[in-house]
Amino acid sequence: MSRESSIWVDGVPSLALPLPDRGLDFGDGLFETLLLRRGQLLYSELHLQRLGTGLGLLAFPDCLAAISEQLALVQTQLQEWRWSCAALRLTVTRGQGPRGYAPPLDTTPRIIISANRLHTDSEVMSAPARLITAHTRWGSQPQLAGIKHLNRLEQVLAAREKQSAGADEALMLDQAQRPVSVSAGNLFILLGDTLHTPLLNECGIAGTRRRLVLEQWAPAIGLAVQETQLELAALENADEVFFTSSLLGLRPVSSWEKRSWNDHSVCRQLYARYLAHSL
Amino acid sequence: MSRESSIWVDGVPSLALPLPDRGLDFGDGLFETLLLRRGQLLYSELHLQRLGTGLGLLAFPDCLAAISEQLALVQTQLQEWRWSCAALRLTVTRGQGPRGYAPPLDTTPRIIISANRLHTDSEVMSAPARLITAHTRWGSQPQLAGIKHLNRLEQVLAAREKQSAGADEALMLDQAQRPVSVSAGNLFILLGDTLHTPLLNECGIAGTRRRLVLEQWAPAIGLAVQETQLELAALENADEVFFTSSLLGLRPVSSWEKRSWNDHSVCRQLYARYLAHSL
Repeated sequence: MSRESSIWVDGVPSLALPLPDRGLDFGDGLFETLLLRRGQLLYSELHLQRLGTGLGLLAFPDCLAAISEQLALVQTQLQEWRWSCAALRLTVTRGQGPRGYAPPLDTTPRIIISANRLHTDSEVMSAPARLITAHTRWGSQPQLAGIKHLNRLEQVLAAREKQSAGADEALMLDQAQRPVSVSAGNLFILLGDTLHTPLLNECGIAGTRRRLVLEQWAPAIGLAVQETQLELAALENADEVFFTSSLLGLRPVSSWEKRSWNDHSVCRQLYARYLAHSL
Repeated sequence: MSRESSIWVDGVPSLALPLPDRGLDFGDGLFETLLLRRGQLLYSELHLQRLGTGLGLLAFPDCLAAISEQLALVQTQLQEWRWSCAALRLTVTRGQGPRGYAPPLDTTPRIIISANRLHTDSEVMSAPARLITAHTRWGSQPQLAGIKHLNRLEQVLAAREKQSAGADEALMLDQAQRPVSVSAGNLFILLGDTLHTPLLNECGIAGTRRRLVLEQWAPAIGLAVQETQLELAALENADEVFFTSSLLGLRPVSSWEKRSWNDHSVCRQLYARYLAHSL
């Protein structure tokens, strides 16, 4: 049997979500996208840490143990199927509830895991990306900034713009026109000897690979790195630009508006750390 | 058979949503809450107008005809069951799609309608509500302001606050601390001879009953009404306060922080218009 995708709902293979569900009704939940490579889930501890932060912020009951258990179950299944690479999406919703916005007091989160087999070789850095600027901006919402909740319309609309434009990614700005991210990844800008990534105190998602660049990979190659409130001018003056995501690792940027970049050496060095670190 | 709730997915009775679905994945969709009273769906044309605006903003294919058809089908079914009053939730998602934020180019929206039978007499104005101020604020996102999309975490968190505090509703402010709404309704503030409701150019949902107060009910009782960018001081100085929602119509506010209101005469007059208008 050659299976290419599969979904589990609360640990049971299923192609349907019981209704009602507050994840559908209000986006009342969180998710993570994990990469399975050579049968191993990469950085699952970082994904679960961010998920834990989100569960706390949304006042979900503690369900991390159940989530880990179901993730392990799926991983075992994929090993049995001899999948080497896959994209896993782990979704946690507040489950069933009465009508209305107020969450039930006694809530049982629902855990949905979907797996899509990948046949691309994720050990080769993706070709440099052409960026447009999305008209769709991040809303300003400090209370929910950083976590990966299910309210993702802004990124959907930005991704639609890049699709229509035939670009590889879309730069997303905040309400004050400052660069924040691309539609599906965190942005990094090299200015002289220092690598910068936008501060995420008003919007955006604090990516696991962003964290690894900040805490491990950039320090490992002796590169100064910091979170900065960047203006658009920083991008115009950048010596090198790339973005990070759990599925791609790091991807260099070749062009944005009238600028283009041929030098991707810092991104390449960090990608080598990423490969060394995760294999 | 005494049935109290029912769900239809794409016109077929069902208790499950086929997966994957972009409504669950990203909140990529819209919804409406409609009131069935005496077997009639109130103001369905206004709900469908707002839904149409949202479908356009999110670049969904035109599916209003299919939605109207399914709504009529459900209404007929509820009449057969002899339901007099019910709360209907109509959800439209972008349906199935490939992995990732970018919506599929060829998309078939999914239409989910759930109906909950109501036994309360919706022809009597609700008791005046006690309000707290939610710590959770509306994010600032002009591009999505007004429409009723599925990204509703802010209201979920605000509703949770009112629930924890044992209050009836929670006042929600914007990022600049200006009053916008309650968690599940639009806010109206009487100052002297003029009724004000917050401008919704940065956040909030443009309610159908809000529109009726602005365009029909307030004019019908000779009351000046306008959309205003209100400061919190306006609420402190208010002569009367109430909010609107599709299920309650209008509901007076009895207290907020240190203020209390005993006079609900404008709300009562408007409620009489609402009843006269919708029966």
